Amino acid sequence: LIQTSFYTPVQDDLAEVDLIMRRQAADYHPDLQKALDHILSSGGKRIRAAITLLVGKMYGSEGDVIHLLASAIEMLHTATLVHDDLIDGSLLRRGNPTLNAQWSPGATVLTGDFMFARAARLASDTNSVQVMKIFAETLGIIVNGEISQLFSRRCLADRQNYSTRIYAKTASLFETTCRAAAILGNTTENQIEDMRKFGYNLGMAFQIIDDILDFRGEQITLGKPVGSDLRQGLITLPAIYYLEKYPNDPNAEYLLSEGCLENEKQTVELIQTISQSDAIQLSHQEAVGYTNQALEILTKQPACEARSSLEAITNYIVDREY
Amino acid sequence: LIQTSFYTPVQDDLAEVDLIMRRQAADYHPDLQKALDHILSSGGKRIRAAITLLVGKMYGSEGDVIHLLASAIEMLHTATLVHDDLIDGSLLRRGNPTLNAQWSPGATVLTGDFMFARAARLASDTNSVQVMKIFAETLGIIVNGEISQLFSRRCLADRQNYSTRIYAKTASLFETTCRAAAILGNTTENQIEDMRKFGYNLGMAFQIIDDILDFRGEQITLGKPVGSDLRQGLITLPAIYYLEKYPNDPNAEYLLSEGCLENEKQTVELIQTISQSDAIQLSHQEAVGYTNQALEILTKQPACEARSSLEAITNYIVDREY
Repeated sequence: LIQTSFYTPVQDDLAEVDLIMRRQAADYHPDLQKALDHILSSGGKRIRAAITLLVGKMYGSEGDVIHLLASAIEMLHTATLVHDDLIDGSLLRRGNPTLNAQWSPGATVLTGDFMFARAARLASDTNSVQVMKIFAETLGIIVNGEISQLFSRRCLADRQNYSTRIYAKTASLFETTCRAAAILGNTTENQIEDMRKFGYNLGMAFQIIDDILDFRGEQITLGKPVGSDLRQGLITLPAIYYLEKYPNDPNAEYLLSEGCLENEKQTVELIQTISQSDAIQLSHQEAVGYTNQALEILTKQPACEARSSLEAITNYIVDREY
Repeated sequence: LIQTSFYTPVQDDLAEVDLIMRRQAADYHPDLQKALDHILSSGGKRIRAAITLLVGKMYGSEGDVIHLLASAIEMLHTATLVHDDLIDGSLLRRGNPTLNAQWSPGATVLTGDFMFARAARLASDTNSVQVMKIFAETLGIIVNGEISQLFSRRCLADRQNYSTRIYAKTASLFETTCRAAAILGNTTENQIEDMRKFGYNLGMAFQIIDDILDFRGEQITLGKPVGSDLRQGLITLPAIYYLEKYPNDPNAEYLLSEGCLENEKQTVELIQTISQSDAIQLSHQEAVGYTNQALEILTKQPACEARSSLEAITNYIVDREY
């Protein structure tokens, strides 16, 4: 959990965002309220909400409108996780039971749908047609990314494919988060475009680090098995670097020629080798490349406490334990 | 299929709506396009789109904006069907294979999500914040209705519950269809409220007739077994009337005391008895009550070809073979 000082400028706002999100099920079926409370209590970092609020603050957008946007973004993100966990059959997220671990598939699908509906409602409550448009567009991009992943062949080691995938999965929503928050503030078109790029770079870095952590973390911290991506046949950046650099490692060779791994032993070995190789460092450098661009963009924005927090978040993203 | 004259004033518009809907997957994964084409080709009547266009025409809203709204409404409706069929495990709709009959549950969930996303995008393309808000709100109501149905006990014979359920399932979207179309036209607040009520009454009638057809239709026409609601423990209006009037029918008595039916034989018998009883006529009268209110509202609207078509649709809804 991020309990660090860079959330300070928006701590009260984040509490308000939490209330707004929980309130979304108030007039609906009591089990929806239970589900929503369960999901929202599962210890998310609310990093997207915090970024929304900070970008808002930097550009003079405070109060209801930016709270609604932050709630919409966080709710959209959470809704996609509900369906993801169902589709992947994941029983734990951040160490807590997922909704589908406790509910029927049908109830889980519908709860995700409900959250999409309420996220869309919250986005429209910002009264900005432009925000509404990019919000809906982003959901389409995220879902399309998941569909592409579902239908693409396993163990595809391809940089272009990787970039497209992490853009859809993560960077697109970070991009929309920052862009929409800027739209709601007192901003020029250039500043809005700057914020879009800032969010994009932040999101790309965020996902690369997540993909590194998947190799380096401990099961207990990750709340899922180490190397879960590779186990599912998903080749992320550390594996791409490793396969590029050590194509003669027998396990790498097998993977590249057969398009899959032979057995659990081989998989565990390869995860282990990658996690101890310089592929981790190389991936990290790539993430830092993105955050450097993000930081560069920030230097051009109005100096204020919110901007300092955004810098700190940007640095934090690549400094997370790995 | 409705091939009757009341679609005439909007025939070209409906063709355009079809194009807009199919275009929604153009920049995405090719399998999404396939799925969308499959779903859109499964012979829906596009009655919601037609009503949108006709209400629009009555109030001088033509061209792109109303086409976008009609596409958004129809796309939203279709997306909910995709998830419904998955949850119910239905393999046929209108006699055609459902998406989940051919695709994995995961791909089906995501295709529905994608359609929600594109529906929201289309709604926001109308550039009306108000339309966007009621659109998102309606999705919440529909999904909440499905959740309530999933969690409510089987064989509940209760009028209030029935009304709430068919409002959520059908009337809420008809209401939003007509209200949103009116919002986009040159209308007074009163006319918008009139159209909301018109849509509500139309939707309530539409669902009651659907529930009658579930008893009276033939499997081949329905594309599902006769009496499918009762088989699933869902007590619709004809059953409610029957149970009220003939509580001493042994099968009715069993249902009322045990809260369920004992076996297939009893179920088939009760479906048969209800379908040949005056409960059908009584339910039909109730639907006519709603359409009479809808027609009454129409008399106050500007006389034009579109209004005549709306009258014809209203009459058609309660005149469908039953």
